[in-house]
Amino acid sequence: MTYCCGVLVRDGLVLIADTRTNAGLDNISTFRKLHIFEEPGHHVLGLATAGNLSVSQSVVSLLREGVEDHEAGERHQLRDCRTMFQAAQLVGTAIRQVHKVNGELMEQSGISFEVSFLLGGQILGDCLRLYMVYSAGNFIECTPDTPFLQIGEHKYGKPVLDRAVSYEMEISDALKSSLISMDSTMRSNLGVGLPIDVMVVSPDTLRSELLYRVEPGEPYFHDLRERWSAALRSAHASIPRPPYLKDMRTRRLTEV
Amino acid sequence: MTYCCGVLVRDGLVLIADTRTNAGLDNISTFRKLHIFEEPGHHVLGLATAGNLSVSQSVVSLLREGVEDHEAGERHQLRDCRTMFQAAQLVGTAIRQVHKVNGELMEQSGISFEVSFLLGGQILGDCLRLYMVYSAGNFIECTPDTPFLQIGEHKYGKPVLDRAVSYEMEISDALKSSLISMDSTMRSNLGVGLPIDVMVVSPDTLRSELLYRVEPGEPYFHDLRERWSAALRSAHASIPRPPYLKDMRTRRLTEV
Repeated sequence: MTYCCGVLVRDGLVLIADTRTNAGLDNISTFRKLHIFEEPGHHVLGLATAGNLSVSQSVVSLLREGVEDHEAGERHQLRDCRTMFQAAQLVGTAIRQVHKVNGELMEQSGISFEVSFLLGGQILGDCLRLYMVYSAGNFIECTPDTPFLQIGEHKYGKPVLDRAVSYEMEISDALKSSLISMDSTMRSNLGVGLPIDVMVVSPDTLRSELLYRVEPGEPYFHDLRERWSAALRSAHASIPRPPYLKDMRTRRLTEV
Repeated sequence: MTYCCGVLVRDGLVLIADTRTNAGLDNISTFRKLHIFEEPGHHVLGLATAGNLSVSQSVVSLLREGVEDHEAGERHQLRDCRTMFQAAQLVGTAIRQVHKVNGELMEQSGISFEVSFLLGGQILGDCLRLYMVYSAGNFIECTPDTPFLQIGEHKYGKPVLDRAVSYEMEISDALKSSLISMDSTMRSNLGVGLPIDVMVVSPDTLRSELLYRVEPGEPYFHDLRERWSAALRSAHASIPRPPYLKDMRTRRLTEV
């Protein structure tokens, strides 16, 4: 499994990805899933991947080496895109190209051609944007109404994002939220694990503000996990108990 | 969708189920999913259902009217079972009987024969127990190591149970935890909704301690939702911000 999350607030962009891959429970490895494409002053892009690793790696390689445009006889790299929309389109084209080569036999072998991407960043002349690209190459863009997107094992980490994240929050709070969301996911799904890769981009700087790997035992993240657990337990304790059992004014529903 | 949760602690059993069913997003209804089988002094059983409604309703009807045992030429009702293990077996037998009649054509029509049950309660002479029964009729029993079981949309509501529930907690805290877990699920999945049915059984009483329906607008549950949201927000606020951005001692990972 995988968990990746992108948060896009007024103050900037956070991309976060775990590094655990597994082929069955007995074959677990560490692979980078957050890929950086950066030319300071020109573009800064992060691409987080989920799904079949052979597919996502091929897509990333095509984006670096160039996706063939047979009609024009050209190859397009991610660095050549002039807008974030074009960059998301190119990710889609790369997915379809990999599908054309590998899709049929993979599906015949019962391996689903499943992959998804978070593409976030900024290109000179465009704004800071965040997209989610699906297996078919179609995509959606993140907007201020729901300023985050998730791929992979998204459910465990969603409640905290639903409650804590808003477009007006500061970037360091957005980063904190995404780390708490990652913690909730790791706690409930063994297929998501440390280390965690983090990228932060501030608007109109055209360079990464932060590229960081949270390793096992890293003091801040360890402390965050402990504090979040303790805070949840105390939040739980602070809520009054249900009055239903005390006053026993039960409405009987069915008796057989 | 559906969310049902059972918590079995030393102090008693909680079963909780939402009531929303949907055939597509444009066909939403309210159906009871928590079924009570009770003869005070003899047995008290709750059966929570998830999955295909036609299958789960047929199973419940068979358990009330009697599951045919062709070899012995008898019919067995849930009320005839002498242990909770026998009751879980009978639920399994009923599922297989429905599968025999409806399974083939459902699957030919592309409708998956998917159903699951939480069966909890006590029968005179046996202990208070909780089981989860799968589509194939096989089942597992809840034990003190992980004193809860979930069916349906289980992921959103699991982090709070993982952190808050322990076998030694009081029954009213177990009820509170299950209501918070239900709240987290409802907030993230529109397919899970009010009203919520609740059953509480204390050990060796052989009657339900509480049979209650939480209706929309019910003051305690409304207050719990507000308090939990506020507590999560303040828990989030109480955690220090990541130092990564402040000190900018970034480890650069890749630059292209």
